[in-house]
Formats: sequence, C-alpha cells, structure tokens
Amino acid sequence: MAFDEISSNRMFGGVQSVYRHDSSATSTAMEFAVYRPDSATGAAVVFLSGLTCTWENFTVKAGAQRMASELGLTIIAPDTSPRGGSVPDDPGGAYDFGLGAGFYVDATQAPWSANYRMRSYVLSELLPGCIEEFDLDASRIGISGHSMGGHGALTLALGAPGTFASVSAFAPICAPSQCPWGEKALAGYLGDDRSGWRGSDAVALIEDGARLSEVLVDVGLDDAFLAEQLRIDLLESACSDADIGLTLRRQAGFDHSYYTIATFIDDHMNWHAQRLGLRTE
Amino acid sequence: MAFDEISSNRMFGGVQSVYRHDSSATSTAMEFAVYRPDSATGAAVVFLSGLTCTWENFTVKAGAQRMASELGLTIIAPDTSPRGGSVPDDPGGAYDFGLGAGFYVDATQAPWSANYRMRSYVLSELLPGCIEEFDLDASRIGISGHSMGGHGALTLALGAPGTFASVSAFAPICAPSQCPWGEKALAGYLGDDRSGWRGSDAVALIEDGARLSEVLVDVGLDDAFLAEQLRIDLLESACSDADIGLTLRRQAGFDHSYYTIATFIDDHMNWHAQRLGLRTE
Repeated sequence: MAFDEISSNRMFGGVQSVYRHDSSATSTAMEFAVYRPDSATGAAVVFLSGLTCTWENFTVKAGAQRMASELGLTIIAPDTSPRGGSVPDDPGGAYDFGLGAGFYVDATQAPWSANYRMRSYVLSELLPGCIEEFDLDASRIGISGHSMGGHGALTLALGAPGTFASVSAFAPICAPSQCPWGEKALAGYLGDDRSGWRGSDAVALIEDGARLSEVLVDVGLDDAFLAEQLRIDLLESACSDADIGLTLRRQAGFDHSYYTIATFIDDHMNWHAQRLGLRTE
Repeated sequence: MAFDEISSNRMFGGVQSVYRHDSSATSTAMEFAVYRPDSATGAAVVFLSGLTCTWENFTVKAGAQRMASELGLTIIAPDTSPRGGSVPDDPGGAYDFGLGAGFYVDATQAPWSANYRMRSYVLSELLPGCIEEFDLDASRIGISGHSMGGHGALTLALGAPGTFASVSAFAPICAPSQCPWGEKALAGYLGDDRSGWRGSDAVALIEDGARLSEVLVDVGLDDAFLAEQLRIDLLESACSDADIGLTLRRQAGFDHSYYTIATFIDDHMNWHAQRLGLRTE
C-alpha cells in the first residue's frame, strides 16, 4: 500500500507522522497518524477517536507518545469517517452522523454505503497496510478508543476474534442500539431492521456469544453522556453474564473530555503493553 | 478582580480551568487558562504562547499538567493578544502581527496602542489578579514561553527584575530587532525609532545591563525558524558577555512544533520547581 507522508515530527524518543493514502474500502483518500518509537518492538495499539474527531485529537491531546516511547509501542490513529467533496454528510450537518461520525461500521444504506465503510477500512485495509509498512507483529496488536471510538474498539475486537490481543476503552458507547447517538447512526447506516444492528453493538455481540478475555474501561463520573449515551451499566451486566474480565474504573470528578484521556492514557498504554508481551514496570 | 469561569475540567490531580475577565490594560475581555493542582504550593509558572496561539494550544498540547500536578505547581496560560470586534488586526490578516501576535509589548502607535498592551496586561493585571485569586506566592512565580512567547518570557523577566524567580523558554525569538518577525512587530507597535525597541528585545536588554541569574532554553536543530527568526546565537553571546547562566540545549531532530514542547516540558517544569523551592526528584 502506498502511504504518502504529509508530516513528520520528532516527539519523545520517536517520530509522529501523518500519512495519506487512497482507500479502496471507502473509495476516498484517507489520512491517519502513526507514532513510531525508535525502540519499536512490533507491538502496536490502534486508537479510534470519537464524534467530530480526526486522527489529530488523540495525537495532539492525549500525550500517549511519552509512554509509548518508553514501552516501544507503535500507535495508529485513524480518522473517524471518509471525507472529501463526494462524500455525503448528514443533511442537517449534525455532528453525530456523517462526516466525523462513521461509527466504525460498514454502511448498507444508500447513499452512505458507497463510502462509510470504516469497519472494513480499519480491519482489512489500514491495519494490514500498517503491519506491512511499519514492520508490526500481527499477533501483538491492541485496540482502544474514546466514546464512539470506544464502541469501535469493543465491536471490532468482539467481531474479529484473534485480531486484537488487548482491548481497552475510554467512555465507550457500549450499547448503540439502546442510546440516541447509536440509534440514529445504526438506523442511518444499517437501516431500520434492528436485527441487523447486533453485530455493531458491543452488548448485543456479547449476548450473541462473542467473547473477549478481558477489557479495561475508564469512565468519568462527571461524564455528561454517561447515563443516556454510554450505558456502561449494560456492558457491566453483559460482561458479568459472559464471564468477560471487565476492569471498570469509575473516575470521580472526571468528564468526557480529552483531559480525562490524558490523565489515564499511561494506564492504558501499560495495560496493552503487558498483554502484548512488552516489558513494563 | 472578577474572573468568570467558562470551563473547568478535572485533569491528573487537579483542575484545568478557563476564565474570562474585563481587562483595563487592553480595554477588552480577555481569556486565560489556569491549572491548579490539588497539592498547590503557591508556586506558579506563567507560560506565554507563540504566534497564532491562544491559551488553548499550550493547555491541550503540551501535557504540562501531569508534572505540575506531581510538583504542586500552578500554571497560568494567557492569550497572545487582545481580541474582539473593536480590536484592530493586521490589514492583510497576516499571522505575525495583530490578533494572535501581541508580542508582549505595550504598543505606542495608533491604532494599536488602544488595546495591544500585553506587557502591562500580563505583569500588572493578570499576574497580580491570579496571585490574589488563586492564593499564589508572589515570590515564587516563574515564567516560560514558546517562540514569540519565549521572547515574552525573556523580556518580561529581564525588564521587571524581582518579578520572576525562574525563567525558561522554548525556541525563543531572542533578538526581535534583528529578525523579520520582530522588526515587523516592533516597528508596528512601537514605531520606526529603533532606540525605542531595546526594552522589548532580550539581547538588547542584556546589552543594556538587564540581568537574569540563569535561564533554560531548549531549541530544536530542525526548527525551520532557527537561523532567521530566533537568533539563539545572539542570546548565547549576550549571556556569555553578561555572565548569565544560560543552559542552552540544542535538540537534534526536533522542530518548532508543540511536539517538541511536549517532549521537554517535564524538564522545564522541574527547572522551575527547583528554583521555586519545590521538592523534585
């Protein structure tokens, strides 16, 4: 795959780069960021961002590179939707559908199905491309994400067994079939038949038998979206029923912002490193 | 002074807030950010940002709060210029003069002199206001900054002896009278008579007898502005001649970006903490 470098900056003991490439999954050009420590071990974490974000938010706000550099962990930060003049957006320009809101699903409904194929993009195109381009170890890839990206991390890991050796999330949308953000997105991308949504809903995937060995989830108790949109309670119940090792940390005083991610990102980097066979303290 | 809180987010062991207040120095409303660790010691660092920035860039990109929380150091991040409908901007909308480019001077030339009084704003209004509002220790205040803000840190510290107990800078504009950015700004704000510029030029201030005991400067060797705009060489000579303890670190591979600041901010926080009487490791 041809990645064109559009920026490259030294940061901590490594290089933070941004690439553009033509995607056959989305039929658009796509951008993504990758942090490569000098001490790269071949282990990597894919971080999926939330609504309205691009690769940039996590890359400039989370501060993950410091610990990644110490651990020898590569970080891949994809965009959150296809973009470009020909890509349709929410007719009203809403922030929670269309551009910046791909929800990591493969849309089946016109006009979205032509470009909004973020699940295939991440799993079948970007990740294999990065494994080849950056000499990563396919058996030591973790996934994490925030909010819509937490939903992406959980559903991609649950739906593609064996792809990700470690999983974590910040404030994930756990049951999109049962919250306003998710109902809008899944109805729009996948159609009104709710039976078709279950493969894109972490709680439903677990109910239907998908399994993870363990997952780390941080959520702030002052997160304004906690009760209505995230439904961490449903993930907790589903993991309990399915015997999935959920390490759920409710962080008093913290909210839905990147300030929360920055605070706890080191713990997540270490969580992944331990499960990807890296030396941690 | 009445500070109106416009946001507040928990981050590491403290709170990141943004305030708005009416400034008599600039005759505008001004915004600034402050990070207050739970373990606040009364010591604080003022961080002045560079061209095009607001309080936000340093606050969300530098990752200073992690170490500030450990050290008990408060961080104050002002805006870089007055703003608002009545504030004049560069006629051509250039990034290096007018809005986002106040250069931490008190303009003497119309129309800039009505609002562009960032030196007085920081020294005589914001800092005393923060000392009172946040219970800071006036004898334990440090100052740092980046690029234009590094120029601000050096010139404010040199020009107001006794105000700042510790000084550092990232990629500072060291001799604005001798570089394109500075010549444009000082001519615009202070007029064509170059003798009036010397109090707003770190190298000239030192030549004219102003002193610091010591200063830490980090600059990247891949900084695109190093040779033409920053003139670190002139600062190095001036400090040598004046017996000022300059710790100058030329960082191979690093550039002018916030990726560089994020990489070395912990060193700067520790530099200030040691000189402000805080416990460091």
